[in-house]
Amino acid sequence: MQPAHARSGLEIIPHKECIRLLGTQRLGRLGFIVDGYPMVLPVNYAIQGDVVVFRTGEGTKLDAAAGARVTLEVDEVDQRTGTGWSVVVQGMARDITDDTDWFAESLRQAAAPTLLPKQPDHYVRIDPTLISGRRLPAC
Amino acid sequence: MQPAHARSGLEIIPHKECIRLLGTQRLGRLGFIVDGYPMVLPVNYAIQGDVVVFRTGEGTKLDAAAGARVTLEVDEVDQRTGTGWSVVVQGMARDITDDTDWFAESLRQAAAPTLLPKQPDHYVRIDPTLISGRRLPAC
Repeated sequence: MQPAHARSGLEIIPHKECIRLLGTQRLGRLGFIVDGYPMVLPVNYAIQGDVVVFRTGEGTKLDAAAGARVTLEVDEVDQRTGTGWSVVVQGMARDITDDTDWFAESLRQAAAPTLLPKQPDHYVRIDPTLISGRRLPAC
Repeated sequence: MQPAHARSGLEIIPHKECIRLLGTQRLGRLGFIVDGYPMVLPVNYAIQGDVVVFRTGEGTKLDAAAGARVTLEVDEVDQRTGTGWSVVVQGMARDITDDTDWFAESLRQAAAPTLLPKQPDHYVRIDPTLISGRRLPAC
């Protein structure tokens, strides 16, 4: 049994399990700041090691997140049983569209198709400064 | 057919339909700012008119959102068909736990149970300054 967060009663998910859980999903919600407001949008992401990558269009709100602090939240919740988990990746976002190193190339190839009808041509990576997760215990 | 956002190709969802869609779900993702970082956490919410309400615990990160700008993002995405929608509610969050007016009472009664094993005793409302939505057209 994992240690529980004292206040919320949620179990803390160990780092390695957070990474594994991130690999089981494709849809996350990206939080970023626009004009002082927290903005949240759904994005399809991929993960390589602990680095997250997603595609976005030039000039979009998501594009504005590149070079800034962002948070990707990924979860799976079963309302019927009250079970589930949520993992949060916090870090700096960076546009790697034109990067020529092998890892940037690998990330671009791994990137999932977006939810947009027109596939955008920009790639953004998130280098995590913090990855944390909480699990909802079965009631 | 609804007008499409020129850049993304996504259809813009009219205000009234945004409100209806918000009423079809219970789980949303709340974006707020903690120490300059955008934070995103899953929350169970309810909506009355265009006012959102959710429960939270005292002293939690979510509690820190009360009195601040927040964004609730709600979506439904079918990865198989590439269809879905996303609605975003931006506004000021306010703790209404001790408010005595009839609407605060009504909101507290409407609030959905949280995802937490221990039900917290604080209630937060979001008074929207902007509600917007995008629909993923069928490919």
